[in-house]
Amino acid sequence: MNYFSSDFKLGILGGGQLGKMLLTETRKFDIQTLVLEPNEEAPARYGCNGFFKGALLDFDTVYEFGNMVDLLTIEIENVNLDALDKLEEEGLPIYPSPKTLRLIQNKGRQKDFYVANGIPTSAHQRFVDIFDLRKSLEKDELNFPFVWKSAQFGYDGNGVKICRSALDLVKLPEVECIAEQLVPFKNELAIIVARSVSGEVKTYPVVEMEFHPEANQVEYVVCPARIDEKVAKKATEIALKVSQAFNHVGLLAVEMFQTEDDEILVNEVAPRPHNSGHYSIEASYTSQFENHIRTILDLPLGNTDSKVAGIMVNLVGEEGYSGQVIYENIEKIMAIDGVTPHIYGKRETRPFRKMGHVTIVNEDMTEARRIAEEVKNSIRVISEVK
Amino acid sequence: MNYFSSDFKLGILGGGQLGKMLLTETRKFDIQTLVLEPNEEAPARYGCNGFFKGALLDFDTVYEFGNMVDLLTIEIENVNLDALDKLEEEGLPIYPSPKTLRLIQNKGRQKDFYVANGIPTSAHQRFVDIFDLRKSLEKDELNFPFVWKSAQFGYDGNGVKICRSALDLVKLPEVECIAEQLVPFKNELAIIVARSVSGEVKTYPVVEMEFHPEANQVEYVVCPARIDEKVAKKATEIALKVSQAFNHVGLLAVEMFQTEDDEILVNEVAPRPHNSGHYSIEASYTSQFENHIRTILDLPLGNTDSKVAGIMVNLVGEEGYSGQVIYENIEKIMAIDGVTPHIYGKRETRPFRKMGHVTIVNEDMTEARRIAEEVKNSIRVISEVK
Repeated sequence: MNYFSSDFKLGILGGGQLGKMLLTETRKFDIQTLVLEPNEEAPARYGCNGFFKGALLDFDTVYEFGNMVDLLTIEIENVNLDALDKLEEEGLPIYPSPKTLRLIQNKGRQKDFYVANGIPTSAHQRFVDIFDLRKSLEKDELNFPFVWKSAQFGYDGNGVKICRSALDLVKLPEVECIAEQLVPFKNELAIIVARSVSGEVKTYPVVEMEFHPEANQVEYVVCPARIDEKVAKKATEIALKVSQAFNHVGLLAVEMFQTEDDEILVNEVAPRPHNSGHYSIEASYTSQFENHIRTILDLPLGNTDSKVAGIMVNLVGEEGYSGQVIYENIEKIMAIDGVTPHIYGKRETRPFRKMGHVTIVNEDMTEARRIAEEVKNSIRVISEVK
Repeated sequence: MNYFSSDFKLGILGGGQLGKMLLTETRKFDIQTLVLEPNEEAPARYGCNGFFKGALLDFDTVYEFGNMVDLLTIEIENVNLDALDKLEEEGLPIYPSPKTLRLIQNKGRQKDFYVANGIPTSAHQRFVDIFDLRKSLEKDELNFPFVWKSAQFGYDGNGVKICRSALDLVKLPEVECIAEQLVPFKNELAIIVARSVSGEVKTYPVVEMEFHPEANQVEYVVCPARIDEKVAKKATEIALKVSQAFNHVGLLAVEMFQTEDDEILVNEVAPRPHNSGHYSIEASYTSQFENHIRTILDLPLGNTDSKVAGIMVNLVGEEGYSGQVIYENIEKIMAIDGVTPHIYGKRETRPFRKMGHVTIVNEDMTEARRIAEEVKNSIRVISEVK
C-alpha cells in the first residue's frame, strides 16, 4: 500500500488536541487525512485535508464519514459504535476495532474484561444506577470507602468520586456506575503500548503521573518513572498482557497503580494517543503520534526509547478566569533551555480546561524536574478579565 | 504582544517545503498564519489558516497580501522587493528586511557586501551579461578556470557552472553574472545563525555537507561536522560576523568552504530556514523552524544544541522517472531505529526534484553515518512508469 503523497485517505473521528498532534505526523508523511468533529473551532481544524463538522455519536454522520475514507481511527472513544460495526462489516479497516471500543467505553465491562483475562485490577462491583448502588450499601454488600465511577463518558476526573460516607453520594448523577475498592497507592504509572496490524509490538518507558489534587487532572508526567527497575519490568509485562488481551491495534495507554507493597493494578486504558505520552514529541526517538500512525497503517514501528529525560506539564485554565485566553509569562518559560510549549488552539479558557502542555527535556532528570516546577509556577492560563 | 491563540496574523511569502515545516511550528504555538504561493498544490497548502494563490514577484499581489497580516516573513528570496519596501515604509514589520533581501538576491551585490565588510570570501568579478564576461576573458582580465554564477534566481545548483575552457561557456544564459575564483576545498560547511528582533543571537553547530556530483544538490548533511574544533570555532565566528554585518533578523544560513589550508571562505547565505538545518527537527533541542518563528516574533531563542548526532539525506527524484511519485522501500528504512522520513507533498516526481528528506539520528555519529548510507542506498523516489 502506498500512503505517501497518494490518494489514500485516513479518517480521524474527533478533532481535539490529540487529532491536531496526529495531523503533525500525517503532514510530515503527506498522508491525506479527513477529520470529523462537532466543534468547527476545534484544534484539528487546520492541518487536515478535509474537515467535516458533525456529531460523533450520530449513526448517519459517522457512517457517511467512514464511506469517504480508506481507513478509520479515533482520537476520542465516545463515537457511534453501531456505525463503526457496519463500516467494519462492509470491509473498512478500523483501528482500534469497534469491539475494543465497546469494551472500553463502559468501565464496568472494561473491569470485567480484566478479571476475565487474569489482569490485576482493584476489586469492583457494577450497578445499573445510583439507586442500585444504594441498595447494595443498605444490604452491606458494598461498604465505604470506595471509588465511584460513572460507567460511561467519564473524562479527566469527571465521573470519578472517592466516597467515604453517604454525604459523598448526594450529588452523584443517576447513571450506570461502578464502585471500586479504594487502594492506597504510592505511584500512578502509565505505559503506552504500540501494536501494529501485523502484530509488531513496542512499549514506551514507564511514566509517572502526578495529579492536581482538586481538578483530578494530570499535572506532571515524568519519563522515565523514578521507580525500581523490577517494578518497571512488572508494569511493562502487565501492559503487554493487556494489549494482547484486547488484540489491540494502535496505541494503548495503560494506566496503573503501584500499591504500597509494589503490586501493579491496572486502572484503565485509553485506546489512542494519550496525555501521558505527550512528552514523546520532544523526548523520544519516535513520538506516540507518529507511532500511532505507523501501527494503524501497518508500517514498521519507530524506536520508543528516549533521547533525553522528559517531563510534561499540562496547561489548564486557571480557576476564576473565563474568556479569550492569555498565556501569561509564556515568554519567560520559553527562555529556559529545553522548554517547549504546545498551545492547542482553544481561544476560550475555562477553569481546568486543557489548553495546552509544556514539555521539558534535559539530559539530567533532576534538572528537568526542577525546571518543570519553575515552568508550572511561572506560566498562567488566564483571560483579560476575571 | 500576545501571539498565542490570538488575532495576530503572520504572513509567509512562499509555500514550499520550508513554509510547510514552518507551519508545523505555528500550529504547535497556535499562531495564525497566512501563506502566499503561486502553486495551489504546494506543500504549505495545508496547515495554514489561509492560503492565497498568487505570484510572489507581482507588486500588487505581494502588497495586498502584506496588508492582511501583522508581520511578514519569507521562505524564498525571490519576491517582489518594491512591495516589501512600501509595506515596511507603512509600518509593517518584515523579517528578513527587504534591504537584506535586496543585497542577497543579487550574488554580485552579496559578494561586494562581504568584501566591504571584511568577510573572507573567494575573489570575484561582476559582469552585466555573458558578453561582458567574454570581453574580460579576451582582455585577460579574467582567466580559466573560474566559477560562473548567475547573479539572480539561482537555486540548488541551477545557475552555477565551473568553467575550465571556452567550451563551458557555450550553453550559459545571457543574464547578469559573476565569475568566482575556483578555490580547492576540503569541506563545504554551513552554520545557521538565529538572531531575534532585539538582537539575541544563537548559532547551531557547524554542519558538513556532501553534494551529489551531478545534480549539485546536497546529498548528506552531517551534524556536527567532523572537523577540528579550531576550524569549527573560526567558522562560527565568521558566521556571526556575517549575521551582524547584515544586522539580520531571522535565520541566516551561512554556507562556507573550508580550504585545503583550513581557511574559511563564505560562499553564500540564505536568510531563512535552510536545507542544511533540517536535521534539527529530530536532533536539536529546538528546530530551526521553531527558532525562525522565535526570532521574528522577538521571543527568547530556543537551545540550538543537539540531543544526538543527526544526518540528513535529501530525497530527490531519480533520473529517468517523471509522474505520480512512489517512495520505493520507504517501509524498509522506517524499520531502522532513528530514521524519520519527511515527505514534502509533491505528487509529481521529476529528475532531481526535491521531494523530501530523511533524518537519521543516533547517539553515535559513526553508526548514524552508516545508517544514512543504508537509507540512501535503499529508498528510491520513482514513478510507476518511466
